[in-house]
Amino acid sequence: MDFRELEERLVAFRDVRNWAKYHTPKNLAISAAVELGELLEHFQWGSDGEILEAVKDPAKREAIADEIADVVIYLTLLAHELDIDLDEAVERKLEKNGEKYPAKKY
Amino acid sequence: MDFRELEERLVAFRDVRNWAKYHTPKNLAISAAVELGELLEHFQWGSDGEILEAVKDPAKREAIADEIADVVIYLTLLAHELDIDLDEAVERKLEKNGEKYPAKKY
Amino acid sequence: MDFRELEERLVAFRDVRNWAKYHTPKNLAISAAVELGELLEHFQWGSDGEILEAVKDPAKREAIADEIADVVIYLTLLAHELDIDLDEAVERKLEKNGEKYPAKKY
Amino acid sequence: MDFRELEERLVAFRDVRNWAKYHTPKNLAISAAVELGELLEHFQWGSDGEILEAVKDPAKREAIADEIADVVIYLTLLAHELDIDLDEAVERKLEKNGEKYPAKKY
Repeated sequence: MDFRELEERLVAFRDVRNWAKYHTPKNLAISAAVELGELLEHFQWGSDGEILEAVKDPAKREAIADEIADVVIYLTLLAHELDIDLDEAVERKLEKNGEKYPAKKY
Repeated sequence: MDFRELEERLVAFRDVRNWAKYHTPKNLAISAAVELGELLEHFQWGSDGEILEAVKDPAKREAIADEIADVVIYLTLLAHELDIDLDEAVERKLEKNGEKYPAKKY
Repeated sequence: MDFRELEERLVAFRDVRNWAKYHTPKNLAISAAVELGELLEHFQWGSDGEILEAVKDPAKREAIADEIADVVIYLTLLAHELDIDLDEAVERKLEKNGEKYPAKKY
Repeated sequence: MDFRELEERLVAFRDVRNWAKYHTPKNLAISAAVELGELLEHFQWGSDGEILEAVKDPAKREAIADEIADVVIYLTLLAHELDIDLDEAVERKLEKNGEKYPAKKY
């Protein structure tokens, strides 16, 4: 799935439920932050070694995957409202990162 | 671009720079939160109407797009460390959302 | 209650429960972010007018107050670990803000 | 300084600058999250040991203290808007925590 397909599916999902009125830029940005907070909860107390051990359990891995997906979903809906093409945005950011951190310097 | 391709490119980018040692689950989760904070800055003081007006300016839109891309990039790197397939995760979450919020209820 | 008293009480609370081992800088910073995410949840979908109406309900106001308190608690514990005097820090930041935004300019 | 004094000083600071119109619940909640993101940046890549070493430098410690203070400041302003007494809120939360995690269990 690429971001354009994801965007189309999310907008269709939303429109069928008449939720567009809630999808203001501020609300969607806050929503992404709420879900990121829930994601962070999985990394709150364990050490990195304990976390990597814990995600061998498929249920734990799915719980974390769900939170990551939720952040991605809200960011895609936010990009939609702001007329941002996320495929293009990620592509451009990768290029900028390549220029900012030239491989030969490392 | 789908998540698998993005993941491959990010891991290659990272390995060439010898950054794998920094990419622990906690560090990447924190990094996603840092970038989300920078994204939120664009929604801090303006009203929704002012934000939608401001993003008509391509420079403003690109600045916000960069921050969204940064969050997506760190989430993809985090998923990589945790052996999470992000395409699958988003697909599964969309299904769960469909069951949780049945269209006919709205 | 000032920050020094709060800090003392929190450290005593923690030590009696043998939790110091979990209170690393990264864990406490993540914890503050987790609680802030829970706080943001109260501001996710409603308009500012709806939020101000909703907090007239004491139960809602207490739920939000709890989340704000949780963030303050983790920040105080984090400051403790980093040997930061929070009373002094807030005082100094107020002075810096006064210099950065001189009243006569507004 | 206790929260009531801090609240009074912040409200006076704000009113002299005519900023009350920006201080809606959503804007202040987002502002707290923005500052927390800036705080997290200090914990992004270093290990806990490296962070504890780094804060021995007074400039680094002050930079982190400033970010913690900024979050506290926005939370206090948010509490003000919602008619939440932060001294009371923290006191009550400490009591709830004491009941939730009885010392004798540990």
